[in-house]
Amino acid sequence: MCQLLGMNCNVPTDIQFSFTGFQERGGRTDEHADGFGIGFFENRACRLFVDTAAACDSPVAQLVRTTPIRSRNVIAHIRKATRGAVAIENTHPFVRELWGRHWLFAHNGTLEGDPPRARGRFRAVGATDSEAAFCDLLNTLDLRFADVEPPAANLEHAIAAWAESTGARGTFNFLLSNGARLYARCATSLHHIVREAPFARAHLADTDVEVDFAALTTPADRVAVIATAPLTDNEVWTALTPGEFAVFEEGRRVS
Amino acid sequence: MCQLLGMNCNVPTDIQFSFTGFQERGGRTDEHADGFGIGFFENRACRLFVDTAAACDSPVAQLVRTTPIRSRNVIAHIRKATRGAVAIENTHPFVRELWGRHWLFAHNGTLEGDPPRARGRFRAVGATDSEAAFCDLLNTLDLRFADVEPPAANLEHAIAAWAESTGARGTFNFLLSNGARLYARCATSLHHIVREAPFARAHLADTDVEVDFAALTTPADRVAVIATAPLTDNEVWTALTPGEFAVFEEGRRVS
Repeated sequence: MCQLLGMNCNVPTDIQFSFTGFQERGGRTDEHADGFGIGFFENRACRLFVDTAAACDSPVAQLVRTTPIRSRNVIAHIRKATRGAVAIENTHPFVRELWGRHWLFAHNGTLEGDPPRARGRFRAVGATDSEAAFCDLLNTLDLRFADVEPPAANLEHAIAAWAESTGARGTFNFLLSNGARLYARCATSLHHIVREAPFARAHLADTDVEVDFAALTTPADRVAVIATAPLTDNEVWTALTPGEFAVFEEGRRVS
Repeated sequence: MCQLLGMNCNVPTDIQFSFTGFQERGGRTDEHADGFGIGFFENRACRLFVDTAAACDSPVAQLVRTTPIRSRNVIAHIRKATRGAVAIENTHPFVRELWGRHWLFAHNGTLEGDPPRARGRFRAVGATDSEAAFCDLLNTLDLRFADVEPPAANLEHAIAAWAESTGARGTFNFLLSNGARLYARCATSLHHIVREAPFARAHLADTDVEVDFAALTTPADRVAVIATAPLTDNEVWTALTPGEFAVFEEGRRVS
């Protein structure tokens, strides 16, 4: 199994505080030491940082933790390999382009049985069930909507239907973004929190770091954070229920 | 205009020495300060590092310069923006997946007239003539060979033909790799060198750094380096001629 972290905001925000706690689980406070990755959207493009080293030791994770990269949609993943060797090609998140924008995907869990047969333009580079599922999603969207990016409501409906049918094949917690919205699907464990004014202090659960968001934000800022397990020990996180599909936009849950 | 750096090797090799000289041109010894990027293949997958900061100042470039990442195919680019704003979506190299492997592309020059009309699955995320040309290449390959990756000779012939026709639209120096081979096309300036036993000392042209490759290699190692302008001042580099198309595999030129 692995762990997921996502962030969706109404203004570009850095994820250094959350990532500081999250990376501790990549080999120090938890066992997910088979690599990590994080993707930051800037407009329609996603910038990805991945490494096969444990997040707690990786120089790439160190860079991410110490460099403020502001983004409105971020997805991170720390890996404990279950399918596929420890290799860059098997390291989440995965990125593809569809309709002239990047799509970013990370999965926690295992899908049973063979991956869906390739039946479209997207093909896996690595050997994970996760990348195969992501390619299947994009092939599904591509075949259904062809050359034209559909309205958000139609897209959401198609992704939700695909998530439900794919989820029947095993354990399927995932985070997905196209730079506009962040989609989350819970199978076993996924929690979220929305931070907005009045902002308060937050303290990480995995390492003794505290931040006063009131000092770092403006009253209009709004940030949704989604994680496998709550990252702070003094805030109230909401658990998604098994099978629940959530959509975040502009820093709040919209469905 | 921009500058290009590529490396093709018979064993995974780090590019720290060459990149140390190259990144100086990204704002210090030369004017290419509008971002940089570098992609490293590991098997069929490419790991990309990009930043909109000048390479000479970028913390991402600093990471690349100080972390040994071993790869058999590497392409780097430092940018002086001519088409498209300074933004991640316009930062070379660009990556796409075709036939279950990543393709990596960087361009130096400017193509005149409109980019080719989108007529396939690959669509640009950003606004550069370069990414539009790359998408046109992949659409061309996809339409010609459909679902089956062709033999290397057929692929080479198709890429060379596409390079020649696209090059007629302007200045078209490029580096391209699919993780197996590295393809180089010269319009105005591209130089290469093959380092093999007996290895010697090399001294960078852009900063006072010297390395003794004899101490860092085995007699079987072979490394081809391709760059817009020679990176060292005590070795003999070979200039490609305008319109020349070169293919590198296993650390040597194969056609």
